Amino acid sequence: MLSDIEISRQATLRPIKHIANKLGLEPSELSSFGESKAKVHLSVLKRLDDNLEGKLVIVTAVTPTPFGEGKTVTSIGLTQGLNAIGKRATACIRQPSMGPVFGIKGGAAGGGLAQVVPMEELNLHLTGDIHAVSSAHNLAAAAIDACLFHESRLSREDYIEQAGSEPLNISAKQILWRRVVDHNERSLRNISVGFGDNNGPIHDSGFDITAASEIMAILALSRDLKDMRQRIAKLILALDVRGKPITAEDIGVAGAMTVILSQAIEPTLMQTLTGDPCLIHAGPFANIAHGNSSIIADRIALKLSEFVVTEGGFGSDMGFEKFCNIKVRESGKAPDAAVVVVTLKALKANSGLTSQLDINEEDMLRLQAGFANLRWHINNVSQYGVPVVVAINRFPTDTESEISWLKSAVSDTSAFGCEISEAFAKGAKGAEALAKMVADATDQVSEFKFLYPLEASIEAKLLTIAESGYGAKGIKLSDEAKRQLVQIKTMGLDGLAICVAKTPLSISHDPKVKGIPADFELPITQFKINAGAGFITALVGKVMTMPGLGIKPGYLNIDINEQDEIVGLA
Amino acid sequence: MLSDIEISRQATLRPIKHIANKLGLEPSELSSFGESKAKVHLSVLKRLDDNLEGKLVIVTAVTPTPFGEGKTVTSIGLTQGLNAIGKRATACIRQPSMGPVFGIKGGAAGGGLAQVVPMEELNLHLTGDIHAVSSAHNLAAAAIDACLFHESRLSREDYIEQAGSEPLNISAKQILWRRVVDHNERSLRNISVGFGDNNGPIHDSGFDITAASEIMAILALSRDLKDMRQRIAKLILALDVRGKPITAEDIGVAGAMTVILSQAIEPTLMQTLTGDPCLIHAGPFANIAHGNSSIIADRIALKLSEFVVTEGGFGSDMGFEKFCNIKVRESGKAPDAAVVVVTLKALKANSGLTSQLDINEEDMLRLQAGFANLRWHINNVSQYGVPVVVAINRFPTDTESEISWLKSAVSDTSAFGCEISEAFAKGAKGAEALAKMVADATDQVSEFKFLYPLEASIEAKLLTIAESGYGAKGIKLSDEAKRQLVQIKTMGLDGLAICVAKTPLSISHDPKVKGIPADFELPITQFKINAGAGFITALVGKVMTMPGLGIKPGYLNIDINEQDEIVGLA
Repeated sequence: MLSDIEISRQATLRPIKHIANKLGLEPSELSSFGESKAKVHLSVLKRLDDNLEGKLVIVTAVTPTPFGEGKTVTSIGLTQGLNAIGKRATACIRQPSMGPVFGIKGGAAGGGLAQVVPMEELNLHLTGDIHAVSSAHNLAAAAIDACLFHESRLSREDYIEQAGSEPLNISAKQILWRRVVDHNERSLRNISVGFGDNNGPIHDSGFDITAASEIMAILALSRDLKDMRQRIAKLILALDVRGKPITAEDIGVAGAMTVILSQAIEPTLMQTLTGDPCLIHAGPFANIAHGNSSIIADRIALKLSEFVVTEGGFGSDMGFEKFCNIKVRESGKAPDAAVVVVTLKALKANSGLTSQLDINEEDMLRLQAGFANLRWHINNVSQYGVPVVVAINRFPTDTESEISWLKSAVSDTSAFGCEISEAFAKGAKGAEALAKMVADATDQVSEFKFLYPLEASIEAKLLTIAESGYGAKGIKLSDEAKRQLVQIKTMGLDGLAICVAKTPLSISHDPKVKGIPADFELPITQFKINAGAGFITALVGKVMTMPGLGIKPGYLNIDINEQDEIVGLA
Repeated sequence: MLSDIEISRQATLRPIKHIANKLGLEPSELSSFGESKAKVHLSVLKRLDDNLEGKLVIVTAVTPTPFGEGKTVTSIGLTQGLNAIGKRATACIRQPSMGPVFGIKGGAAGGGLAQVVPMEELNLHLTGDIHAVSSAHNLAAAAIDACLFHESRLSREDYIEQAGSEPLNISAKQILWRRVVDHNERSLRNISVGFGDNNGPIHDSGFDITAASEIMAILALSRDLKDMRQRIAKLILALDVRGKPITAEDIGVAGAMTVILSQAIEPTLMQTLTGDPCLIHAGPFANIAHGNSSIIADRIALKLSEFVVTEGGFGSDMGFEKFCNIKVRESGKAPDAAVVVVTLKALKANSGLTSQLDINEEDMLRLQAGFANLRWHINNVSQYGVPVVVAINRFPTDTESEISWLKSAVSDTSAFGCEISEAFAKGAKGAEALAKMVADATDQVSEFKFLYPLEASIEAKLLTIAESGYGAKGIKLSDEAKRQLVQIKTMGLDGLAICVAKTPLSISHDPKVKGIPADFELPITQFKINAGAGFITALVGKVMTMPGLGIKPGYLNIDINEQDEIVGLA
């Protein structure tokens, strides 16, 4: 089989205007970016205000393993399959981050015959949204440090005379706003800034990957530009010497930040290999951020399609939980069905058992032990009142007896059904059966439930996620977290949602614990206030908001060839 | 008169495809980015290989003052004026940096009736090239620090086993590659990185503004993608423990960096207010970088136009000098004429005299004293063998007696002529007379001369720039610079060109010295090797490669209004 980038390059692309037309967009609602991408203007939402919304399908997965479960392959394949069986379906996915693209994971355009194309345009700059997020974020960092600098070098009187306003009395030790870059940059996790003559005060800072930026969350959760402007105004950048929050509005940078994002707020339209519409918008990771693409893109797609397929990052404990408890609360649109993607390899790896057998060989023992993880995820999704379809992302090495055992095992769970997806190898045709089952599942009467009410305290909400969302027996706050909790209450931000930042490689906080972790307390090391996005991030265990590059990073394989084509992107 | 952004917004824009067609591009040579911008594919250069090249006009200025001399206004106005008198002319300018846009200077789209439109698209992300430069640059920084991290945590044997290659033995104290961000970020000038568990080794680093990145210079100086790939391979990122250079090729990141820049290498086509073509490409500053737009854009424009108007940043001691000694050496295309832009205000401010009179009032004394600065710049340009036209960028407050004195004074210099430009207030019509004179000047027989031969030593080349380029009586190297000079010779890089980084606010290194500085030595504090771009940067005096935000930064005025329109961009 050809590589993903070869398949993408050999594909016959439709002009993006045809895709837009098929989706139901008017020419004036589109700005083309090259031949195969277009920004969709938000004016479309006004025009479609009276349209009914289609059905929303969220794709999630079992606990991820190094083999890759093919969640995006399945999301894109399902969209292709739905269109193949005559349903108008649109995929809504996140913009890939350059961190994974040049790190280890590679791109995020799907793969095989279930891809968004051209994959290199999706995986690199797309239409510049992530760059805009970095730029807006870092302007706020520059602004707060410039204020601090001028306040520290001038007397109050001189400051007022020169600035024309009162000093904010920023505390150099209480700058809460870090910086971002869209790369895996271990050495920038914790830095000290302000060295040299007249560049200070010297203080601690650090970089997160842009996917973890609060601005990225705001891009994903905003209704429109005005809503975005209001959320940016509320960003807490620092505390003053008395502990009072200083916002982006206070330092006068909220308007400029919004201006930097004024194009990024428009989703980007691309196409699948079968010419089906795909909206790409925002790119928060699901471990260290809320992990779902934008509300604006979903809304546009829902107004124009019978089915919208989106995905929450990592396992259902991560992106799916945040989809339900953060995104649905803001969008008001609950999912009509969920797809849990699984592979035989993933189940075997999730068994936690070692074996003499290669992971590609038939191994009923590990498969059966690993099934517990799938059952856990089915139950986890079911507790939200959402019908579950299990999608087995089939590999050529999977045996019939393994598959049939798995299907039968799923039939004893609360899942609506279980179907094989061969979208990777066969494209739309390989996902038709799955598409039919998903369509049927959305006809179920379902009653969506949040896991926790916003009115509960931060601790209570966290405890609910820990217990009902991960099966923990409680939570344990570090001293720093306890101190921050008091701060959050003092600021009156107790009513925000919770976004847990934890490893995706286990349902617990410990990546080494596979299967269904039990008998553990969730250790909360730190809280981060996201007053603009509308949630409090709780950092769990050793999770880090900036990845690092491994010893054999992906960039080693990436280059241009003699024909000036890109090679090595996967 | 309306504000620049109001004029821009009220303008009737031609579809960018019409502009491209008028320029002589074929539809297949274009990728539209929205309605008013398009990337131009480099395939056009092959098609036009046999075309003769038009005439190249470089716009420079007297020593800049806080009032702004209107160099871009004049460049765009001149392009409009040339087209108005029936010459096919194209402007080639740099992409504005967000640093000045949100700092103090504002945008760089020209102004009044001589603008590139839509100005907000030019001034913000354009087609993402500066973001791509930042991203490629910072990937190299991440790569070198990741190598250092893995080398420092593993024994040689373990490293070889895991990495599959020998360690490079990077010296943490000899990492030469800094980081970049496209904002004014004083507090990031000097930082320490690598704090925390397992994020190290801790070492010094810092950020420059992206306009000063060597990648930006490479973007501006490359002939094509392969040339860019080869230049990136040569970037020196660090030294090993024995002092041997470690390049981007050595650490295997050169291919990925080129891939990140594979769209940025295409210039962006926009239009002036009168629908004339403008190519925007690369954005190096002329104080801390080489200060000229790209060779690729110039070449495309020259193949398709009778006249190409470009500009070198700041005064003729800065961007123009580097245009001649760096860009022309790489492009092989010498300028056919130079325009030196002057305003009465700038001459008065350059007089160094104080006065009771407001700068807008008639003041022959200061004007006559300040004229020396203009004469210096005329002579400076003339020594390259390039015909000089002085353009007086006229303001409503200028008096007839001042103007006529100035014209007469210029007639006693080596300048080809002197003409008034009223492009700001009157657009193309206000620049017709200037356009005629410039066209005539390009008919002069001229013999372009470099200031120095590449074969000279670094000291000799620097001495020539200091003496003949600034009128200094010599150079003075810091101990660090002396040490670095030995290093440069050892590396065999003595034959590179020189790019002086110094204040633009004086011909000397001291921004307070106005007029024609005399009797000074040029203090070289530091050298930076730009082996990929092909020059050695010599840092002079207190120049800094990262600006800071002032106490009343430009971002305070920038916002969206009730109609979701951008306001406050100037």
